[in-house]
Amino acid sequence: MEYIEEIRSLERQLSFRKVIEIPDHFDNIVVAGMGGSGIAGMILRDFYTEKPVILVNSYGIPDFVDSKTLFIAISYSGNTEETLEATRRAMEKGAHIRAVTTGGRLAEVVDESVIIPEGYQPRSAVGFLTIPIFMGLGLVDESEVEETRKLLRGSDLSVDPFRKFAGEIFDGEKIPVIFGTPGLGSVAYRWKTQFNENAKVLAYSTSFPELNHNDTMALENTYRKDEFYFFVLTPKSVEKEINKRIRITSELCRVVLNRVEGEGSTLFSNIFSLIHKGDYISYFLAQKRGVDPRNVKIIEKLKVELKKQD
Amino acid sequence: MEYIEEIRSLERQLSFRKVIEIPDHFDNIVVAGMGGSGIAGMILRDFYTEKPVILVNSYGIPDFVDSKTLFIAISYSGNTEETLEATRRAMEKGAHIRAVTTGGRLAEVVDESVIIPEGYQPRSAVGFLTIPIFMGLGLVDESEVEETRKLLRGSDLSVDPFRKFAGEIFDGEKIPVIFGTPGLGSVAYRWKTQFNENAKVLAYSTSFPELNHNDTMALENTYRKDEFYFFVLTPKSVEKEINKRIRITSELCRVVLNRVEGEGSTLFSNIFSLIHKGDYISYFLAQKRGVDPRNVKIIEKLKVELKKQD
Repeated sequence: MEYIEEIRSLERQLSFRKVIEIPDHFDNIVVAGMGGSGIAGMILRDFYTEKPVILVNSYGIPDFVDSKTLFIAISYSGNTEETLEATRRAMEKGAHIRAVTTGGRLAEVVDESVIIPEGYQPRSAVGFLTIPIFMGLGLVDESEVEETRKLLRGSDLSVDPFRKFAGEIFDGEKIPVIFGTPGLGSVAYRWKTQFNENAKVLAYSTSFPELNHNDTMALENTYRKDEFYFFVLTPKSVEKEINKRIRITSELCRVVLNRVEGEGSTLFSNIFSLIHKGDYISYFLAQKRGVDPRNVKIIEKLKVELKKQD
Repeated sequence: MEYIEEIRSLERQLSFRKVIEIPDHFDNIVVAGMGGSGIAGMILRDFYTEKPVILVNSYGIPDFVDSKTLFIAISYSGNTEETLEATRRAMEKGAHIRAVTTGGRLAEVVDESVIIPEGYQPRSAVGFLTIPIFMGLGLVDESEVEETRKLLRGSDLSVDPFRKFAGEIFDGEKIPVIFGTPGLGSVAYRWKTQFNENAKVLAYSTSFPELNHNDTMALENTYRKDEFYFFVLTPKSVEKEINKRIRITSELCRVVLNRVEGEGSTLFSNIFSLIHKGDYISYFLAQKRGVDPRNVKIIEKLKVELKKQD
């Protein structure tokens, strides 16, 4: 499958309907996942606030994990070392264990695994990785998903704006910095990771209003300012106060903030439409740079080296 | 007080002994705080894993907040808009409310406030902001604090290494990027914010092992690599696996990772000794750049502009 086909597949992924089984009672959710798989947990944390959601992106798990914890392990390959180790520890603590994976060792050790389709880059499978959790928890309904799918198809038909952003970044050899707004911090981080993995450029993310307490002081007179390309991700309908922050930050710091809007009427549609736009921009940047967006050889080499005995 | 005196005061701040009162029963902790004040919550989240710790750095609070939530509002001035609004909402939900502040409106609305000394930049008061929570929760004992104070005094007497780092960053007009290791993600973020506010340069942070799933792909052949200055923050005793990751990342990506070690035998001493080192480096960089580390006029202007009616 061409990489652009993987990007386009997001719309179809949202029709996936296998879901994780949710226990009747639980006090908190712990989501373990790294990189492209871990992003599903970050999105959940932005989206779901009825119970505490704690992310694990290393080997260890928090001490509070117990039989009242819903522990969700997310690993596309099913063989991510950190996630396997965290899952093993959560099992020892008696947590409710669920997994979303294509198989691997994770599917072997977790009885209640949702098996998702193989053949994608993990980061391209963000729909498959998210839907089983969102649908399981009852966080979205069919009409919201349908609206979102329609919006994604719309983006697929008019990719020129994404090509333009990529062109500006490429021409200036700029480092992308993505500013999220409340509810969209996970999407800003997703963009960062896609620039890293697809286009092989450094990129960073942070969020309003927190950035107004630190980054703002640098933005005005840092050296190398012109070497960065600043995005602001907003939902379609932005709170007045956040709009004001964006405008004032841009004026006071004399910096261009390239605004990219989500689409649709729900947080779900805004999150996924923005993920899709970022995927395209990073893909076009990879094309311009002449690098293969699928290539993650360094990460694979690193995993091999890590396994070697000293 | 000269700014360097504020930095040196960290050691004395750790002797502060007013503590927040902890309720007998609570299910989770929500810490609200922005920027220099919010960092105390981030440190707590790295440190304390016996209950879920959720950070709020905006106006809203999670839906789960209720009478079983210990809600800690941290605002040095006591007048931070986001934190005041979040506190008001938590009160409506019946949470146990505590505050750490010098006064302001926060001290007026929260009965159980720990009042800390005035006269510092909020970000220099990280000891005052942290101790009432750490001591209240019984997370550190006197001997650990005493060990840490001794180590901080040691750093105060030999600041040449910090001056050297600042010099290298300044000479190359580099953008600092700080890599944390498990348990030290909050400290990496603290360094970023100190580079922003003290030295007025852009800076970013991320952490091992997560960065091996995304940044790593960019580090090898991104453009502008030589314009960044990479730090890795580690505890005095590093897990073998993390050491291996650092070495392999540096080799495979052909990048210099400037390692800075914490000191002492506990996570507490490692966190505070590393905070202190970062404070010095950002201070010396401000000196070299000829900027006033105390000046946060842009942030103040922004607050004024935000209050104006449209």
